[in-house]
Amino acid sequence: MKFYDYHRAPSPRRVRMFISEKGIDIPVVEVDLRHQAQFNKEYQDKNPRCTVPMLELDDGEYIHDTLAICDYLESIYPEPPLIGRDAKQRARVLMWYQRIVDDGFMAVSESFRNFVKGYRGHALTGPVSYDQIPELVERGRRRAERFFEDLDGHLNGREYIVNNTFTLADIAALVTVDFAKAIKLDIQGRQSNLKKWHELVSARPSAQL
Amino acid sequence: MKFYDYHRAPSPRRVRMFISEKGIDIPVVEVDLRHQAQFNKEYQDKNPRCTVPMLELDDGEYIHDTLAICDYLESIYPEPPLIGRDAKQRARVLMWYQRIVDDGFMAVSESFRNFVKGYRGHALTGPVSYDQIPELVERGRRRAERFFEDLDGHLNGREYIVNNTFTLADIAALVTVDFAKAIKLDIQGRQSNLKKWHELVSARPSAQL
Repeated sequence: MKFYDYHRAPSPRRVRMFISEKGIDIPVVEVDLRHQAQFNKEYQDKNPRCTVPMLELDDGEYIHDTLAICDYLESIYPEPPLIGRDAKQRARVLMWYQRIVDDGFMAVSESFRNFVKGYRGHALTGPVSYDQIPELVERGRRRAERFFEDLDGHLNGREYIVNNTFTLADIAALVTVDFAKAIKLDIQGRQSNLKKWHELVSARPSAQL
Repeated sequence: MKFYDYHRAPSPRRVRMFISEKGIDIPVVEVDLRHQAQFNKEYQDKNPRCTVPMLELDDGEYIHDTLAICDYLESIYPEPPLIGRDAKQRARVLMWYQRIVDDGFMAVSESFRNFVKGYRGHALTGPVSYDQIPELVERGRRRAERFFEDLDGHLNGREYIVNNTFTLADIAALVTVDFAKAIKLDIQGRQSNLKKWHELVSARPSAQL
């Protein structure tokens, strides 16, 4: 296998952490997003969505979606489980993963990509040009603020997001909270549950990646 | 278990079809979105995102995300498999499911909800009010058109989207194509692969739901 990564990007960081938590070693191919290497014909032939992360399987097939990659790695390297030990635990992790991505990660991304000059004409990932929409800067930020608030409330009395253990949901949320610094959004003083959880998960070796 | 549904909405239709394809029977609770029943305190206590579909498990726990619900049902009712028979098949289904939702379903939804008067102040699902943004009507439509084009290309030489069999990816794509009628987007004459596939999957009994 090969893991197509870019060390400064938040999306592949989720897979980077997942691989580290599994204690496995997969050769890395760095895709230089800063120089738009994801739009090269060679990469586009492998992944028409031009996104990172991507996993190349041993037979040359490509999987280019964070959840699909993590689910595949969970199947072939079940220990330690990061998506749950049974049907119900899995359902909780997947539900929270999707909520974190939709309400948190994509909200931060929406605010960031519609603001930063470098993304003019590339407000959405992928090969098609879409203009920035100024209203989305503020809307994305409002959504992200609400997500922080909701997550703080959910973490009241909980050490981890679901299943009383560290899972892919914690990975996705940690990456989202750290990514939010790009839009100058930080954990608020009153969000003490979120702060405590963030300190706990940030101390893991995988979080240093 | 109980399945919280709304018969006119595209999101829960995916779960409706999934349940039908499994050949199982789950009691249905209709949530009248037209009269905003998803914002009732009683429903919001069960699902703070105020979305449908939702699955109530036998122990009273609630799962409110389409993929999480389908994955749970696949775990407890493995036959026929709709998310794949092994790690690689699963990875393909999940990758395509996410692509169909992000590039197709959410694009149609973006165009629709930012246009229709009834969604003023509710341009995004959930309990928080977000204004419509007129630019998203056109952007969503462009994204959906591109998705139709990409899916037509992918279906060249393929009967189903992945794994040479009917899966959750086909369910998600069928619901997306049918939902697109709401923004007056239909399969184009030149998209013969998409048209053939649409006829094939539309003929299934589950597609009548």
